[in-house]
Amino acid sequence: MNVTVEIFSQGEEIITGQTVDTNSAWLSERLVRMGFKVTRHTAVGDELNDLTALLQEIAQRADCCLCTGGLGPTSDDLTAEAVAKAFALPLAFDPVAFAHIQAFFTRRDRPMPASNRKQAMLPQGALRIDNALGTAPGFALRYGRCWFAFMPGVPSEMRHLFDTTIQPYLQQHFTVQPSHLITLKTIGIGESALQELIEGIPIPDAVQLGFRAGIEDVQTKLLFPHAYPNSDKTRLVAQFSAQLGDFVFAIDGLEHASGDLVEVIAEMLAVTHQTVAVLESLSQGLIAAKCIGQSWLIQSLYQQSLARLAAQFGLPLNSADLMATALPLAQAVRQHSGADFALVQLAVVDAKQSSGQEQSTAIYTVLATEQGAYPQSLTVSGNLKRKQNQAALMALDLLRRFLQNKHAIPCQHYTD
Amino acid sequence: MNVTVEIFSQGEEIITGQTVDTNSAWLSERLVRMGFKVTRHTAVGDELNDLTALLQEIAQRADCCLCTGGLGPTSDDLTAEAVAKAFALPLAFDPVAFAHIQAFFTRRDRPMPASNRKQAMLPQGALRIDNALGTAPGFALRYGRCWFAFMPGVPSEMRHLFDTTIQPYLQQHFTVQPSHLITLKTIGIGESALQELIEGIPIPDAVQLGFRAGIEDVQTKLLFPHAYPNSDKTRLVAQFSAQLGDFVFAIDGLEHASGDLVEVIAEMLAVTHQTVAVLESLSQGLIAAKCIGQSWLIQSLYQQSLARLAAQFGLPLNSADLMATALPLAQAVRQHSGADFALVQLAVVDAKQSSGQEQSTAIYTVLATEQGAYPQSLTVSGNLKRKQNQAALMALDLLRRFLQNKHAIPCQHYTD
Repeated sequence: MNVTVEIFSQGEEIITGQTVDTNSAWLSERLVRMGFKVTRHTAVGDELNDLTALLQEIAQRADCCLCTGGLGPTSDDLTAEAVAKAFALPLAFDPVAFAHIQAFFTRRDRPMPASNRKQAMLPQGALRIDNALGTAPGFALRYGRCWFAFMPGVPSEMRHLFDTTIQPYLQQHFTVQPSHLITLKTIGIGESALQELIEGIPIPDAVQLGFRAGIEDVQTKLLFPHAYPNSDKTRLVAQFSAQLGDFVFAIDGLEHASGDLVEVIAEMLAVTHQTVAVLESLSQGLIAAKCIGQSWLIQSLYQQSLARLAAQFGLPLNSADLMATALPLAQAVRQHSGADFALVQLAVVDAKQSSGQEQSTAIYTVLATEQGAYPQSLTVSGNLKRKQNQAALMALDLLRRFLQNKHAIPCQHYTD
Repeated sequence: MNVTVEIFSQGEEIITGQTVDTNSAWLSERLVRMGFKVTRHTAVGDELNDLTALLQEIAQRADCCLCTGGLGPTSDDLTAEAVAKAFALPLAFDPVAFAHIQAFFTRRDRPMPASNRKQAMLPQGALRIDNALGTAPGFALRYGRCWFAFMPGVPSEMRHLFDTTIQPYLQQHFTVQPSHLITLKTIGIGESALQELIEGIPIPDAVQLGFRAGIEDVQTKLLFPHAYPNSDKTRLVAQFSAQLGDFVFAIDGLEHASGDLVEVIAEMLAVTHQTVAVLESLSQGLIAAKCIGQSWLIQSLYQQSLARLAAQFGLPLNSADLMATALPLAQAVRQHSGADFALVQLAVVDAKQSSGQEQSTAIYTVLATEQGAYPQSLTVSGNLKRKQNQAALMALDLLRRFLQNKHAIPCQHYTD
């Protein structure tokens, strides 16, 4: 029994692209976790006819609709008027809403502009939702099969109204069954290659399989319906985990959320109190930048000139075989820094690459540990920013693989 | 004569809130500038019936529809199938599209997974749009009054297809009157403070004023209607520019697009062939990371322990007055590195800060030049990632101010 919800965003700034609508994603994530089925997001600008038509459409289609925006004091804030017109519910002055608006200005020691009186006009019979953070009250009403809630577009106010009023109301008035999402997070394998690895696994009809290739990882998502047997869940997840092997750096939703790659590394290093020093080339500071807030990263160096870099550590530069330089360099960085681990990455970045030429780049990464050095060579492609990001992730992933397995598994053929 | 366009985003990750849909805003901004009227954004998930219904709706309503997402190789990528069903255009194998997909894998030295063949199946009669950056070709077709273009959901690929194919097509096939957008880009001033600075400037009714506070800058946007007199444009922009002063690092739309802060710096350094070395603290590699592809950045160092850092350069650490350490350190980094400029940034990052405590952090930045050293002290607030980003931007902005004015203007009271 799916309870369907639509999200409706109103505002000229959204429809013209001046503002990215983050409210829809925020609300959807909350709703999905609660067990609702979000079926559509729609945004329209400040045109009364568009708004009215959309409200009438949604009233036919959905069980519930959460609307943001258009509750401000100015003439282009038309939501209440559109609701009045769409559902034949004339606007009526709400003295309590007006008192709240007046109090808002009194608290700030400012006179209330006359235009704000408009915000106290609510569609007849609507439930007023008080807004402690701004002047615009929200409101809610049922029309036909659909329950509508209207919130301000300012994200902080919208979130506040959702948390304090809308969410409790939804939980009380709708019978929904929260589903259970388990996410396998991988690094070092592209989306298509990943799909090939798992294509032999039979997936029950009730389970929804999804993928998300992001900047930080590739995620395989298994959405289990409410009351799906726990043993069946863990068996299916184990099958995926076995197929994906060492590409999996974390699984979310089984016991606890595990965070991103850096957080996974941090959790392991927190046990042993070990530290890391890095030497970056193509990643150019991004390994260090990703480790912000992590006390185990004690230093990071980027040196554009590899010759100068090698000389700094008293080593010869072997341009024909960068790995031959990276190996002793990693040991040297480990010694000089006093860190338990050194991650050293060398790459030749062609001058042409900065001008958008898209050819692949070879990267030579070495993890130096107390037990010896672990080399990893790989090629990355795409534009320079993508390569930079992949270079940073793959270096950190070499450390993750070592920490998880106590041996480093080279990922020779990684391509993004 | 408005030509109406709708934006349609497809994907379970959007509808469930896993991904914020930035494509719609990006496309809308481009379309509005070209003179189109964007009337609606809609997103639906991976359900064939929802997709089909939506395509049929839009075909009735709009002159043009730009769609993103759902072109991938997997079973949940349903856009082509939905188009086939909605408009009775059976899918047909496109050998050229297939050759492009094969070539994509050949360039990366990887076997093509069988699943990618699906991406070469296009609705009968559709115009193929080649995708140089990924495996998914786009396509376009007319149904009834509406011209539809389908693009991949990956933002870089979508933008590439829009710039190379869709935009030229739209310009050729639709008669629209482009408006003119001029954007003043600032760093070092928050959105409210900025609005206060300019509130005295009278803005003609025909001109649309907008703001956008992003990660890299705060933008003030002036949208002028088609055929607005040039002299009136430049006069209004000059008034804004005078009010915002040195906070403005670039103005887009007057002569040429100026790029982001790093590109503005790069343009100035390219003239003099000067180089930069940086020493990072709170920014932790992010200054270097932002300068990817810039040959003028010759080195970057991050050292967690300030005591160790000072000792490395043979300087005493003055913990009570970090500026007293930062000043000689900047000169030392400039000398050691051989760079024309050294940017040195010191900050004490409280251990509590990594655990989400949001208190402000003092940052001491020094720009060392041939003419002497320029200090800048400021405080940043927000979560740690925001502080890291602001620290990196404000250091680069100190260099920008020096290069633009030949003197550095301290920005003591910056708060984000």
